[in-house]
Amino acid sequence: MTPSRPTDRAQSVVALGGGHGLHASLRALRRLVDEVVVDDLTAVVTVADNGGSSGRLRGEFGVLPPGDLRMALAALCGLDEWGGTWERVLQHRFAGEGEMNGHVVGNLLIVALWEQLGDHVQALDLVGRLLGSTGRVLPMALTPLDITAQVRGTDPADPDGLTLVRGQVEVATTDGVITRVDLEPDAPLACPEALQAVADADWVVLGPGSWFSSVIPHLLVPDLRRALVETEARAVVVLNLEEQPGETGGFGPADHLAVLVEHAPELAVHTVLADTRMDPAEHEHLREVVGAAGARLVVADVASDDGTPRHDPAKLAAAYEQIMLGQEAGPDADLVARP
Amino acid sequence: MTPSRPTDRAQSVVALGGGHGLHASLRALRRLVDEVVVDDLTAVVTVADNGGSSGRLRGEFGVLPPGDLRMALAALCGLDEWGGTWERVLQHRFAGEGEMNGHVVGNLLIVALWEQLGDHVQALDLVGRLLGSTGRVLPMALTPLDITAQVRGTDPADPDGLTLVRGQVEVATTDGVITRVDLEPDAPLACPEALQAVADADWVVLGPGSWFSSVIPHLLVPDLRRALVETEARAVVVLNLEEQPGETGGFGPADHLAVLVEHAPELAVHTVLADTRMDPAEHEHLREVVGAAGARLVVADVASDDGTPRHDPAKLAAAYEQIMLGQEAGPDADLVARP
Repeated sequence: MTPSRPTDRAQSVVALGGGHGLHASLRALRRLVDEVVVDDLTAVVTVADNGGSSGRLRGEFGVLPPGDLRMALAALCGLDEWGGTWERVLQHRFAGEGEMNGHVVGNLLIVALWEQLGDHVQALDLVGRLLGSTGRVLPMALTPLDITAQVRGTDPADPDGLTLVRGQVEVATTDGVITRVDLEPDAPLACPEALQAVADADWVVLGPGSWFSSVIPHLLVPDLRRALVETEARAVVVLNLEEQPGETGGFGPADHLAVLVEHAPELAVHTVLADTRMDPAEHEHLREVVGAAGARLVVADVASDDGTPRHDPAKLAAAYEQIMLGQEAGPDADLVARP
Repeated sequence: MTPSRPTDRAQSVVALGGGHGLHASLRALRRLVDEVVVDDLTAVVTVADNGGSSGRLRGEFGVLPPGDLRMALAALCGLDEWGGTWERVLQHRFAGEGEMNGHVVGNLLIVALWEQLGDHVQALDLVGRLLGSTGRVLPMALTPLDITAQVRGTDPADPDGLTLVRGQVEVATTDGVITRVDLEPDAPLACPEALQAVADADWVVLGPGSWFSSVIPHLLVPDLRRALVETEARAVVVLNLEEQPGETGGFGPADHLAVLVEHAPELAVHTVLADTRMDPAEHEHLREVVGAAGARLVVADVASDDGTPRHDPAKLAAAYEQIMLGQEAGPDADLVARP
């Protein structure tokens, strides 16, 4: 692994994930575009959602679930009044008591564009142009996927027994402990533009986000996994700030990293980014797992101050900038001192 | 009434109507914008629809029915690839067997913009900007309306009896003969920008379109009717090419004009535009009704060649241009010779 080095040219970044985690990461990365630290930003988004507005549209039309794509597009909207207005419209969720309740306008718009244009990427690029986006949003695969999970302990009578749970919503809310996840179909067609973006990138960023249902799935699409393993881009894994009741109940930072590595042991992780809010034992355990993975650990204050377990885009941007501008650090040393 | 005169400045035009008729008229008028005959084009659109996607949204959210507004916006879309693509998306109707079946994307987008922006006109202007529109689209009133009709002869046992029919769909498909239409509520709030556009116009164009349910309703909104009566703009009435089974079954060109005049006798009609496809008796009858209204009659080939009873935008544009560029003609003389 090459340690990162100070660079005098802007960086090309691919961020992989889904949902709110990817949204926060993109909000951070777009700041680096504005600061010309990053000049090429691509989001690669999970397409395994089966709940809510996305799930309804997927069920009705057999299309990719559009919700996570729409949220990534919203994160990259232009910062002028035009971009902000269309972002709000894209994110607008119908209320009321009728058939439209819960549907999100951007999801409907994306599905209509797919039907009209017959091309996933062209349609998403068009929404990006509408929003004046700072980057590109691509699906991780061109067919709708389902996540399945091997879950331990859902049956109180058989605490070591494994159950197969199917569906993103079901996996995200399982009572048991997820031991591994897979995709159905297990070898979906990857998005060629996403593979190319990974091949051309300087950095790929995995996480934060729903770990088993939004982050790890990228490593389960065979062609995308191969692209992530073969690219010369440095891989940054951004750990979640907290466990998510259900899919990562009881998980500390090191556990997050460990299950990701288990799902793709051949992936060379360059940098692991964790928040400063860890107790010393957790920190030490994380340091060990990061070291075993041959990566370096960066610990920085990246949590939102609003009490939610979400990343603060400005703080996350500062951490990304520090990582990408190439402060030297040993593979298992903290780059940023804990306060 | 001032006869029209040759003019060396571009004209300001307000087209009032709804549905396919207004769409054809706007497609014609936008050509005159491209040719700099018209420099300011405003569509004022009925908001009384209670059927289809519009009716469902109106029922679910209590909003103005968006469909006719959306169709007018589509008619004015920019002619480049961007405008054409967004026009297709705006007009995209979901198929399938599910809850979205029959909904039109532009309707959903307009309703979402109304909810987000809280301002009817600002929202429609924003869709216009999205499309790169050549003109502005405004609603005739700011509250959803219902059309009621006095209908004669729906009861075979009482062929002269009158029935009250309520709702645009119901009026448009009635079996009987409509003797007059009204609005519920009967004095809705007009759109101030529409009133101003009528006051500032050189020309106002009424029709073509569903006569009782899309054209005459403009004369029933008190403030809009007053604006149409008081403006110095010349009023052009564009007659339909055929009767519409249901609302204008059995109507010839003269009957269309007669019922419009009955609904607003104080409106000074400047020019009546009819198609050349009339038999001599119809033509003579129309000439009499036009003369009685103090208007001039223009007869031109404006029908589509495709066999539909729709106006051809190019032919209609040529007729509008001839009318607006001000060939002199006596009030009851044909401007254009019949072939």
